[in-house]
Amino acid sequence: MLNNVKREIPKTIPGFGDVIPFKGVWQHMPMIHTAPVSLVPSGKGTVKKLHSIEQALDACELKDGMTVSFHHHLRNGDGVLNQVMEAIDARGLKDIHVAASSLFPVHAPLVSLMEKGTVTRITANYMLGPVAEAISNGKLTYPVVMQTHGGRARAIEVGDLSVDVAFIAAPACDLAGNLNGVEGPSACGSLGYAVPDAHYAKRVVAVTDHLVPYPANPIEISQEWVDFIVEVDSIGDPEGIVSGSTRLTRDPLGLNIARKAAQAIEASGLLVDGFSFQTGAGGVSLAVAAYVREIMRQKKIKGSFASGGITGYMVDMLEEGLFRSLLDVQCFDLQAVNSYKQNPAHQFMSASMYGNPHNRGAVVNQLDVMILGATEIDTDFNVNVTTGSTGIIMGGSGGHSDTAAGSKLAIVTTQLLRGRLPIIRDKVTTVTTPGESVDLLVTERGIAVNPRRKDLEEKLNEAGIPTTSIHQLKQMAEERAGTPDPVAFEERIVGVVEYRDGTVIDVIRQQKQHFK
Amino acid sequence: MLNNVKREIPKTIPGFGDVIPFKGVWQHMPMIHTAPVSLVPSGKGTVKKLHSIEQALDACELKDGMTVSFHHHLRNGDGVLNQVMEAIDARGLKDIHVAASSLFPVHAPLVSLMEKGTVTRITANYMLGPVAEAISNGKLTYPVVMQTHGGRARAIEVGDLSVDVAFIAAPACDLAGNLNGVEGPSACGSLGYAVPDAHYAKRVVAVTDHLVPYPANPIEISQEWVDFIVEVDSIGDPEGIVSGSTRLTRDPLGLNIARKAAQAIEASGLLVDGFSFQTGAGGVSLAVAAYVREIMRQKKIKGSFASGGITGYMVDMLEEGLFRSLLDVQCFDLQAVNSYKQNPAHQFMSASMYGNPHNRGAVVNQLDVMILGATEIDTDFNVNVTTGSTGIIMGGSGGHSDTAAGSKLAIVTTQLLRGRLPIIRDKVTTVTTPGESVDLLVTERGIAVNPRRKDLEEKLNEAGIPTTSIHQLKQMAEERAGTPDPVAFEERIVGVVEYRDGTVIDVIRQQKQHFK
Repeated sequence: MLNNVKREIPKTIPGFGDVIPFKGVWQHMPMIHTAPVSLVPSGKGTVKKLHSIEQALDACELKDGMTVSFHHHLRNGDGVLNQVMEAIDARGLKDIHVAASSLFPVHAPLVSLMEKGTVTRITANYMLGPVAEAISNGKLTYPVVMQTHGGRARAIEVGDLSVDVAFIAAPACDLAGNLNGVEGPSACGSLGYAVPDAHYAKRVVAVTDHLVPYPANPIEISQEWVDFIVEVDSIGDPEGIVSGSTRLTRDPLGLNIARKAAQAIEASGLLVDGFSFQTGAGGVSLAVAAYVREIMRQKKIKGSFASGGITGYMVDMLEEGLFRSLLDVQCFDLQAVNSYKQNPAHQFMSASMYGNPHNRGAVVNQLDVMILGATEIDTDFNVNVTTGSTGIIMGGSGGHSDTAAGSKLAIVTTQLLRGRLPIIRDKVTTVTTPGESVDLLVTERGIAVNPRRKDLEEKLNEAGIPTTSIHQLKQMAEERAGTPDPVAFEERIVGVVEYRDGTVIDVIRQQKQHFK
Repeated sequence: MLNNVKREIPKTIPGFGDVIPFKGVWQHMPMIHTAPVSLVPSGKGTVKKLHSIEQALDACELKDGMTVSFHHHLRNGDGVLNQVMEAIDARGLKDIHVAASSLFPVHAPLVSLMEKGTVTRITANYMLGPVAEAISNGKLTYPVVMQTHGGRARAIEVGDLSVDVAFIAAPACDLAGNLNGVEGPSACGSLGYAVPDAHYAKRVVAVTDHLVPYPANPIEISQEWVDFIVEVDSIGDPEGIVSGSTRLTRDPLGLNIARKAAQAIEASGLLVDGFSFQTGAGGVSLAVAAYVREIMRQKKIKGSFASGGITGYMVDMLEEGLFRSLLDVQCFDLQAVNSYKQNPAHQFMSASMYGNPHNRGAVVNQLDVMILGATEIDTDFNVNVTTGSTGIIMGGSGGHSDTAAGSKLAIVTTQLLRGRLPIIRDKVTTVTTPGESVDLLVTERGIAVNPRRKDLEEKLNEAGIPTTSIHQLKQMAEERAGTPDPVAFEERIVGVVEYRDGTVIDVIRQQKQHFK
């Protein structure tokens, strides 16, 4: 069957189950029933601290076939997933499902566990590196499930993703299990993505390298959710956890795109008092923020909030009074961590509060403008940030689909070519975010408005901003770089791309094996 | 059948259902299964603000027989419950269950709703005033269920108390439903008791008199839990919400008791670095705190935390460095509200985090010392704070049973006589808190140690603190005031006293009608 973005989706996918095909951005909004949680209550005098991860596996009665979850605030510096999986491997467990909010190159040891059958299922919102490559090459028994940040919270809350044991990397933790991300050698800031895991897993283990006296302060995840505490030498490598600082692009092409995007935002009429904004941490995104900042200063506009993964750049705008508050699910750099620690206007949000489409209203629904990236975009404005030009997994939605769906103006900024390959395609390799939720494409050669947004096109034209069609932009790129050959795949499905509402928006097939 | 505190409890109580008799303080710890929540998801562009409480009743599809819940942070200044119940009455609904965390004299209008059959069930942790009197006199169709603060959180989380619509009195609220208790004309501080309602009710309505720009800051209950928002002229009368300040007793007898209690705490060995402490807001309790403070200063002891309903006195101790943190479920006075608003060490806790016996470990389990009151205490150390000497309901556990069960040293302070009546009885009129969880009774005439705590008695005696038996104290009182006649009741059960774990510790029978 064809889903709403014209992708051929099987009715049933082996190892995944029955499929609800993607129906459109806000079309799957059923009555929601959250999952009951089964837990062991802790009485007076309970000692939660165990001696080792090994002992925690015993205490949690971890068995073949169970699901273990991890959060990714320590990013490529994370040491918890590998330590836990090593302990799981050591006891010869099989058929484990790893539900990690994201996976990074540091998680390469998972590859051999996939090969051995220790790990046969993986669910993640984003993955980059050896694990992603191995999955693309067919090394995981069952298809990987790619979710969004909001969709993962949804799946956990309703039990679509049922977690047996959640391992929470805790930069600071007290002996009752109150924990935060702002203290200790592995401080990473907000622990927003770990909240659904803590609230819905059957067993919750806090893994820390920094025990603090009771009660921890602040408390991001509180003691009533934590079963066990394990102290380890180190939960992560600070080098990989946060970058020292996030930088604006200096590339003239990138700056040109950013300036155009800012002009479009101004022309949209949204850049008024109460303005809200989110960007990623990429150089062009930050340059858009810089241009927007300049306009806000000149026009004395007081914004309401910036959200998402928070960068130092957004902290500067908060401190300058351009926003009243930051809503932070994850800190991208040290400046953000410090601000989150010290400034009460820099507030915590959970993954569900951030982007779950099936709660009573997520923060993304309050967003005016979202700046998005794209690996590919097609002439229906569908965006791929999941697979690279060779079809290999090298990303995933993260918050891409969530913010696109929620924001009033979702802008994709990209150059027309990347590595000599045109970004605009007739058909993206993988649909991550449906074109229905993307309003504008800004490139160095021009701006294309989604035909669904005639109102926006009129506003841009009234402001003297020329627009063109996405087809014309595609043609310009192809005149310079030719038409790329479509990627060839094997038949086997190695990944299922879930839209944030749990419907299936696309599948990922195995890489063609050239060297069999 | 007789339960663990030797109370005769029916196997089934009409209007309540089957009974699990109280088995002992930590004896009912089954595997816990939280209740699934059914909710309507909110998409982009959803407008949550309604024009009136009337409209909210429509939006929530409130029907005969449903359960509506309220929290009591506005105490005797609360305007929300009465406004909502007036609207419910106006549409002629019947058989409504009012689940209020506490009820005060201001809620007197409920009495006529009970008489009309609009309200046939009430559940509360504490009640004082006309509603309590009317229930004691048999005016409620079904027995009132008296819970504890932690027990209410437990009951809501597992679905024993299933809430159809929660009305959250919100001193400050934004249009997406993020709310806090620290701003606006009805600022009351922490909204800890409202959290279970927000998380588990089918529909959640925030009622506010102070809309703030998005996003609210701080956020105590966040937007993903709130379905609807209603703005009213006023949610409460500030006069009744918080007292200007809480005061130490100046009564010599009270000071004598307080000094003895502090000496006992010192002798217990618990008053060392890391010490944690909770008292109520009563004059004697605060005087105990004053003596403890003096000892902490002299011995340079650094405590860890004070918890509970927080008073300005605890704020002073925090600011003086005698505690590192306060854990606050409810602010008792304006000084506490201001501290909670401004001092990051003054932290929020939910009712479940505070006292739920069936989560993974509540704050009460971390408490060293708790200072408790008593209306009556019997020779088994069972305490009554639910009914008065005439048998009429005039209180309830609140956090009494929770903190007694969790703390290492639970001290009841009381004078031997109140209004010429001895406090110590052979058998308390109503068992609120089981004697098993009460360690020490401190009176103006002596200290009695629970025989279960030989270790404690030895420590006190080693420190030169004389102890006596509770029987001797009882005798001293009776020598002065005689033996009070037991209260006579009708047969009909008008109230069920649930222990925090959901078992039944006692029942309350209808007042004898002298003027039929």
